[in-house]
Amino acid sequence: MEHFADRMAAAVRRTQSRVCVGLDPAIDGVAHALGTSLGATDCEAAAQAIWEFNQRILDAVQPYCGVVKPQSAFYEIWGPPGIEALRKTIERAREMGLLCILDAKRNDIASTAAAYAEAYLADGPMASDALTVNPYLGSDGIMPFLQVGRPRGRGIFVLVKTSNPSSVEVQDVRVHTPWRSIWGKAVYERVAELVEEWGRESLGACGYSDVGAVAGATFPGELAALRERLPRTWFLIPGYGRQGGSATGVALAFDREGLGAVVNSSSGITFAGQQYPDVDFAVAAGEAACEMRDAIESALEARAR
Amino acid sequence: MEHFADRMAAAVRRTQSRVCVGLDPAIDGVAHALGTSLGATDCEAAAQAIWEFNQRILDAVQPYCGVVKPQSAFYEIWGPPGIEALRKTIERAREMGLLCILDAKRNDIASTAAAYAEAYLADGPMASDALTVNPYLGSDGIMPFLQVGRPRGRGIFVLVKTSNPSSVEVQDVRVHTPWRSIWGKAVYERVAELVEEWGRESLGACGYSDVGAVAGATFPGELAALRERLPRTWFLIPGYGRQGGSATGVALAFDREGLGAVVNSSSGITFAGQQYPDVDFAVAAGEAACEMRDAIESALEARAR
Repeated sequence: MEHFADRMAAAVRRTQSRVCVGLDPAIDGVAHALGTSLGATDCEAAAQAIWEFNQRILDAVQPYCGVVKPQSAFYEIWGPPGIEALRKTIERAREMGLLCILDAKRNDIASTAAAYAEAYLADGPMASDALTVNPYLGSDGIMPFLQVGRPRGRGIFVLVKTSNPSSVEVQDVRVHTPWRSIWGKAVYERVAELVEEWGRESLGACGYSDVGAVAGATFPGELAALRERLPRTWFLIPGYGRQGGSATGVALAFDREGLGAVVNSSSGITFAGQQYPDVDFAVAAGEAACEMRDAIESALEARAR
Repeated sequence: MEHFADRMAAAVRRTQSRVCVGLDPAIDGVAHALGTSLGATDCEAAAQAIWEFNQRILDAVQPYCGVVKPQSAFYEIWGPPGIEALRKTIERAREMGLLCILDAKRNDIASTAAAYAEAYLADGPMASDALTVNPYLGSDGIMPFLQVGRPRGRGIFVLVKTSNPSSVEVQDVRVHTPWRSIWGKAVYERVAELVEEWGRESLGACGYSDVGAVAGATFPGELAALRERLPRTWFLIPGYGRQGGSATGVALAFDREGLGAVVNSSSGITFAGQQYPDVDFAVAAGEAACEMRDAIESALEARAR
């Protein structure tokens, strides 16, 4: 089985795109795009609309990205039918040759973490190529995912520095690591060290590991520093576009060959049509994905010069 | 709508039990209990077995607890049918008058956190009385849950100090809070302060807030210190029994009236029958819940003397 890091590299090289399209089908946006009205309580109808919407989006963005990222919350909200829509979305994306990172930020320990790993990184109905994972519980909450995903060429992306303003409340408090006599490191830097450690045992041919990091586009300084410190770690970068992250900023997250990161945009792509009422929503999404791909490629070229 | 903290207090007083029964239906244990064999890939059959198992367990433990805690991972693993089994389990438990804490450790920000909140703390198919939440993202990842849950008398339990050995890797690193010129606090103590802040605006008649804390039975010293520092915070205490937590240890987590905490046991109760092959699994579970209730009551009485 091909190593997860090499599958990421292949997806980027094949498409010449560093874009990850986030599939966060908030129901108001979906209803608007499809021109339907949906009651807030009809889970079956909502799930059906989401599935219809996602198929159109996947077809439209496929030429411009190698990776997609469904956000589990927007499916869970509709109960079992919502999970069925998520299952079909993951399956369809993977059939289309897209790598599918399920953004579910799961976290637990021991047999419970193993159950989450079996759910999303083994071969069951929700099988994805990678899963986002929250590191608050330490190694006990990480190893079960690696044990299940690694032999199958699947990976995880560990939250390191998230894109939201209040990420500073926990992630940026300064820590003391007495065994190294170093004061002044932030919690997220401590987590970043752990990420590099967790990944060390399994490197792909491209030089990267199967333990990635989530690091927000809204903190470009931190992003550049993390790139330096974590030379083997793929980054998944949220916060591009509407949250404030720029192409110039995210360019700092790539290595000299333009590998090592994918940049996510969700509503900025999938709901781009809201700003162009006369354009079909899927066409607008495709154009937005194309523009974002080109903006990042230009920023990478400018940086290389 | 009655305040969540008062609903917790009422559940404890009504049953005279501080036990929370964890519903973590690992499929091997379920199959063993039901005397059936289940293929690892038949999601419908697994989900059906889990639902059958849970109904029997709920009937058996109801006299001995006021609170139950399904662990989402063990349902998610079976895809949409698993989520349907979880939905029915939550619904049945609440119909029986049990408070239902969904242990899903969700975490995200902004509209995504709001979607999780709508999924589990509003009135949709998966409506629960409380949800466990991971604090790594800070306030942005907490407020959406309070906005949805609070007006409905529902609460959250924030991971503070988890029961697993590697919780020290992130939760116990020492932090520096420059704005207070204090060195030496652990990350989990910083999170504990945030928990108390988040809960301050909404106290029930019992004096507790609707923002609880998860604090493991395996660290009794930390548990006692947290009780001192967080006088308004309900604790959800995992790690009792098989993980090593004792009744004497967890007694430190209660206030003088015996309120302020519930102690969870999952497989120690639900799979108690594995040690008694001649006893019906549900009968064994009921007896284990009764014993655990009595052990905690005795420890509380011993502490009060």
